[in-house]
Amino acid sequence: MKTLRTQVLIVGAGPSGLLLGQLLHKAGVANLILERQTGDYVLGRIRAGVLEQTCVDLLDEAGVGVRMHAEGLVHDGFELMFDGQRHRIDLKQLTGGKTVTVYGQTEVTHDLMDARAASGQQTLYSAADVELFGFDGDRPGARCTVDGERLEIHCDFIAGCDGYHGVSRASVPADAIQSYEKVYPFGWLGLLSDTPPVSHELIYGRHERGFTLCSMRSHTRSRYYLQVPLTEQVGDWSDERFWDELRLRVDARAAAALVTGPSLEKSIAPLRSFVAEPMRFGRLFLAGDAAHIVPPTGAKGLNLAASDVYYLWQALSEHYRERSEAGIEHYSARCLSRIWKAERFSWWFTTLMHNLSNEPAIDAKLHRSELDYLVSSDSAKATMAENYVGLPW
Amino acid sequence: MKTLRTQVLIVGAGPSGLLLGQLLHKAGVANLILERQTGDYVLGRIRAGVLEQTCVDLLDEAGVGVRMHAEGLVHDGFELMFDGQRHRIDLKQLTGGKTVTVYGQTEVTHDLMDARAASGQQTLYSAADVELFGFDGDRPGARCTVDGERLEIHCDFIAGCDGYHGVSRASVPADAIQSYEKVYPFGWLGLLSDTPPVSHELIYGRHERGFTLCSMRSHTRSRYYLQVPLTEQVGDWSDERFWDELRLRVDARAAAALVTGPSLEKSIAPLRSFVAEPMRFGRLFLAGDAAHIVPPTGAKGLNLAASDVYYLWQALSEHYRERSEAGIEHYSARCLSRIWKAERFSWWFTTLMHNLSNEPAIDAKLHRSELDYLVSSDSAKATMAENYVGLPW
Repeated sequence: MKTLRTQVLIVGAGPSGLLLGQLLHKAGVANLILERQTGDYVLGRIRAGVLEQTCVDLLDEAGVGVRMHAEGLVHDGFELMFDGQRHRIDLKQLTGGKTVTVYGQTEVTHDLMDARAASGQQTLYSAADVELFGFDGDRPGARCTVDGERLEIHCDFIAGCDGYHGVSRASVPADAIQSYEKVYPFGWLGLLSDTPPVSHELIYGRHERGFTLCSMRSHTRSRYYLQVPLTEQVGDWSDERFWDELRLRVDARAAAALVTGPSLEKSIAPLRSFVAEPMRFGRLFLAGDAAHIVPPTGAKGLNLAASDVYYLWQALSEHYRERSEAGIEHYSARCLSRIWKAERFSWWFTTLMHNLSNEPAIDAKLHRSELDYLVSSDSAKATMAENYVGLPW
Repeated sequence: MKTLRTQVLIVGAGPSGLLLGQLLHKAGVANLILERQTGDYVLGRIRAGVLEQTCVDLLDEAGVGVRMHAEGLVHDGFELMFDGQRHRIDLKQLTGGKTVTVYGQTEVTHDLMDARAASGQQTLYSAADVELFGFDGDRPGARCTVDGERLEIHCDFIAGCDGYHGVSRASVPADAIQSYEKVYPFGWLGLLSDTPPVSHELIYGRHERGFTLCSMRSHTRSRYYLQVPLTEQVGDWSDERFWDELRLRVDARAAAALVTGPSLEKSIAPLRSFVAEPMRFGRLFLAGDAAHIVPPTGAKGLNLAASDVYYLWQALSEHYRERSEAGIEHYSARCLSRIWKAERFSWWFTTLMHNLSNEPAIDAKLHRSELDYLVSSDSAKATMAENYVGLPW
């Protein structure tokens, strides 16, 4: 068996793992990334693309911000749509100058992959049968099979950035971890198309036929979502049916402005709230989707992963630079404090905007009245805005 | 059968009916109040006692504010208590100067009864077998039995201020009214005592043993509440058991400061959210608890009744003074817009602070994280404060 040695073994080459690897590399910490899939597979995943300012700053810190600043769209606000009316949430004005940047997760991953290639740090794709060991003691590591060859990797720490279905969380004894989970009784049917966005800002719509999100990736590429029952099959949704349904759920102005075209991608994603506690087990750290999932309303997923990576980068840098274990000791609590607030916001925004057909009639009215209140109150709008742009790290 | 005639027949001599009667009297509109109970029974009901500024202003307008201003306690804030810590919500600072007034509903009723007696307007207590008629046409009225004598009262309008169980809403055909209702799986066990309050401001506490409210009626009279299962019997709660349980749910400072004494009153009240739509049926108007109930967390019940009375007083004054029907036409929509926002706030505050033993573990964590967020965010605190002091009319 071939043996490799690194300081930090990162499991997963999605944006969390790649960003951590790049930050550690710049801090002089050697790292190796193991990824179960191919690079092309990772790049093919379509995800959200609204970045908080703190996430943008961290990508800059990692040295991967050039294309993001050139091509990303800075948004000063978004719109809430209900009863055929749109109400703007002016993020910049309500938060004292904060904004978000629309830049697809796929593009972030692409930039990070390019930087990784330039850094000379090793990434092993198509790593099969990954097993983690020894993280409860002083000599953690992993075994895996790459290109038919069995490898053993020794390291100081393992960063589990391998998502909800990854091996990292699954390697922790069940009695050492507490999970909290909620699955929503609907999904998002998403469509990507090379058409100009219906509006220059995102529109979140509540409608009796279901939630709608009019989003974008650029000035020429749109991303639309429709709330659908979990029983729906994507094959039953022709492009035409999608556009027809979308037109029914938006206001007259948007329906008139909507430019349609062939779909580049179409898929149904379930909505889930999930948190696993704690996020450190000896020398194994969980980060991003490996430890928590938010429903996509409000686009907190990638941003939360970035804040975990921030805390972990700080903790490991302190360890190697200052021989301080403080960041490592506090990693889980620091992450979870911010995570639960973002989980709350994502759950609240989801519940506020969707048609929860199984809820009592009074709950539907209470949610509806919350929207009326929200758009009538400066402090309620400010509360929504400060969560949308991201709470401070 | 004896026949009486008035302009506005008010059903119910609680604070809503009495306040409406006084305002109409001052506007030169004759009115007669029918009450099923005796005056002593009405005065014996113990209810909440936190008045919004708009409610205080309306009581002044009705000419019944003298004792309220002399004896009521103006509160600039309240405290949220959880994890053994208290966090102040500074109402005055967060709302640009607004406050609430602590003055028991019983005292408000007393002052209104005194004013009613001085006004010379007629109140018929112990009115049995009340039947309303004709409100869908031009000649509404009521029949009832008082002192063994059957009466028929003719009027222009009927104001149904007779509460959740009253005859007014029950007189409306079932297919003309839509009801929304939620019953919470717990109650409030309340204790009134002539002991000084444990703190000079109200304390709302979340605790794993259940919600606690430390309230007051004056500097020498305290009102405490404990969340209890609906299956509890008040007879099982000795004063000693109540005080012991309260001490377990408050922080160390409050436990040490608590002065106990014999209970003057002790009872268990269920918690309910309820709204009936619309609130006008021809010449019958519903106001206050007859149309809506809030759970007591945040003390919106009497304040919502006051806003209904305000809109109804305006509508009827316009009718008699200016021959304008606009206020009458808009009465229901105006009331309901404010009511649903207060229903939302009361439901949210209830859910935030109580131990909902039947909720999924993740929901308990989400509610808990909302408290953490709330006390960390100026805009979230401002949002809570503006609802607590009362949204504008």
